[in-house]
Amino acid sequence: MWREKTVYIEVENRLEEKTALHVHGLSKPNVQDGMPEIEPTPFIHPGKSHLYQFVAWQSGSFFYHSSNPLQESNGLMGVLIVLPRQEIKIPNRDYVLLIQQWEIDQPALSSLESEVFKPKNLNRNPNFFTINGKSFPDTTPLDVRYGEKVRVRFINNANMSHTMHIHGHDFKIIEEDAFKRKGKYLDTINLPSGKRFDVDLVASNPGIWPVNGTKPFHKTNNGVSPGGMITRLRYI
Amino acid sequence: MWREKTVYIEVENRLEEKTALHVHGLSKPNVQDGMPEIEPTPFIHPGKSHLYQFVAWQSGSFFYHSSNPLQESNGLMGVLIVLPRQEIKIPNRDYVLLIQQWEIDQPALSSLESEVFKPKNLNRNPNFFTINGKSFPDTTPLDVRYGEKVRVRFINNANMSHTMHIHGHDFKIIEEDAFKRKGKYLDTINLPSGKRFDVDLVASNPGIWPVNGTKPFHKTNNGVSPGGMITRLRYI
Amino acid sequence: MWREKTVYIEVENRLEEKTALHVHGLSKPNVQDGMPEIEPTPFIHPGKSHLYQFVAWQSGSFFYHSSNPLQESNGLMGVLIVLPRQEIKIPNRDYVLLIQQWEIDQPALSSLESEVFKPKNLNRNPNFFTINGKSFPDTTPLDVRYGEKVRVRFINNANMSHTMHIHGHDFKIIEEDAFKRKGKYLDTINLPSGKRFDVDLVASNPGIWPVNGTKPFHKTNNGVSPGGMITRLRYI
Repeated sequence: MWREKTVYIEVENRLEEKTALHVHGLSKPNVQDGMPEIEPTPFIHPGKSHLYQFVAWQSGSFFYHSSNPLQESNGLMGVLIVLPRQEIKIPNRDYVLLIQQWEIDQPALSSLESEVFKPKNLNRNPNFFTINGKSFPDTTPLDVRYGEKVRVRFINNANMSHTMHIHGHDFKIIEEDAFKRKGKYLDTINLPSGKRFDVDLVASNPGIWPVNGTKPFHKTNNGVSPGGMITRLRYI
Repeated sequence: MWREKTVYIEVENRLEEKTALHVHGLSKPNVQDGMPEIEPTPFIHPGKSHLYQFVAWQSGSFFYHSSNPLQESNGLMGVLIVLPRQEIKIPNRDYVLLIQQWEIDQPALSSLESEVFKPKNLNRNPNFFTINGKSFPDTTPLDVRYGEKVRVRFINNANMSHTMHIHGHDFKIIEEDAFKRKGKYLDTINLPSGKRFDVDLVASNPGIWPVNGTKPFHKTNNGVSPGGMITRLRYI
Repeated sequence: MWREKTVYIEVENRLEEKTALHVHGLSKPNVQDGMPEIEPTPFIHPGKSHLYQFVAWQSGSFFYHSSNPLQESNGLMGVLIVLPRQEIKIPNRDYVLLIQQWEIDQPALSSLESEVFKPKNLNRNPNFFTINGKSFPDTTPLDVRYGEKVRVRFINNANMSHTMHIHGHDFKIIEEDAFKRKGKYLDTINLPSGKRFDVDLVASNPGIWPVNGTKPFHKTNNGVSPGGMITRLRYI
């Protein structure tokens, strides 16, 4: 959506328990912040819905999640990107990488794709790591053409910090928590829980390049390598 | 205390084992640094006391702890704030949030307030998370009035990084490890072990706002939600 | 080695399984990046060797490791330091501290030096912590003379973040991931997985000073204190 517009989010609760929605970042009125355990904003009961509304006064990368940590850690979350109304320099590609972790009770020793597994609540000892909901080799590549300017928005709302490395390319931090930064170069970025970092790179080194978490265990699916928090930057 | 004054800390050991006190940060003479496992500073034996003294040449947020990691992780620690002698801009409120984690062997599934539990040494797999010694809902709110400038000093000496989010307000990093910073805006701050970050915010958005760790498990008391690392910013 | 020179690394595989070598940082051609699970670079089979070559266009601190996370977490890694061709200000001392973590299945309750232990793959729940392969008290001190300028290069490729504190001295961040930084002062530095931070300090406070991880458990050898991630800055 565009900056300075009003965000409307209608949440329809199809669960069998109450919920509420918190948008992380973007200061808003107390009744719209969505944490009814503390704030004057309603719980949404099963079968009911609620409309949140507030102004997106700031552009950048945000996310939302249930105010209930158990629901949140089971995946009740998503991404909200606010674009500036007139962007001077629009990148050619704009990718979002939502980083999550999961703890599967009776883990399969390979990919999870063909069966349904129920993650343990709260994921304290995660054994599966996903980018946009998938583990390697099922992750979606970031396709680019030579010479393009590429934005990658890293978002982490897991219990752990995760650390991402883009092979073959250095990149610049453009925004942190949707606040502008001066473009510090890095080759590896730490993503603490709840933080968002937007980085820019120039597609100047053709090939198929890993984009991966650096922690050895996170490059596996429950110990089976390669897997987990790996995707690819792929020149097309 | 005030900068450029001498700090005197008399430690009286009422334990049944030896101890020593290390003040983290504030460079001082080797005999006053308080880590006798390595340095020429004495152990304090049971029933004995020792006087540490050094100049507080730097203002900012510091903490002290036992040089013994087992005593340290059982809570033998505290906070030392050094104020500048003439502060140009004094904030209206100045809060310290000391972040700790605990591992309780036979955990209660609710608040720990009415019984005494002995934490496991070293807290490797923490299930309780405190702000100034209390978990939500027993944490003390940060009371503010509309328009005030508020300083919050985050201090972490736990085994883990913790990540804090102030709802409804952005804030600026003013000092890191008691060194001045240029006031970078954030909405979520990562607190690695042993680090101190002082942040400033303006009380411009009335209400009752959560101040919480973003990691889902840290918002519970051993899995019971809400709990743990949550307090409130409360307009009075 | 020197910047702008070509790096030649011949890897001879004496393992009973295939391997490959990834140099972390230093953008290079896709066939030289060494992650054959994704890139067009060969696996090195048992008894075979392979020559990697690329230009070190950037000076600073780097490391290399096996592309196989299990081999990597069992210690198949090392350090690559690239020096500028003409350094304007050469420090008097230049130390590298490679930080690692290990999980030993049947842990000894004291130092590991006299026996051989096999670490568990992937070190998810580490109980031993090393600096350049050794735990305290067996770590090698950083020897300095009064007045010297000392560079310390911190490198972490473990599953966890580690946090290092140099007692009695503040230090400046000079480079992060081999990119120049403006010299921000700190007394405690967080080292996320896969990151490198070069810091400078002036040897101005004589004595024997701990250099240690701040996490209480990391200052032990499987819970026995003192131990683990501790070395000394020692005036000679």
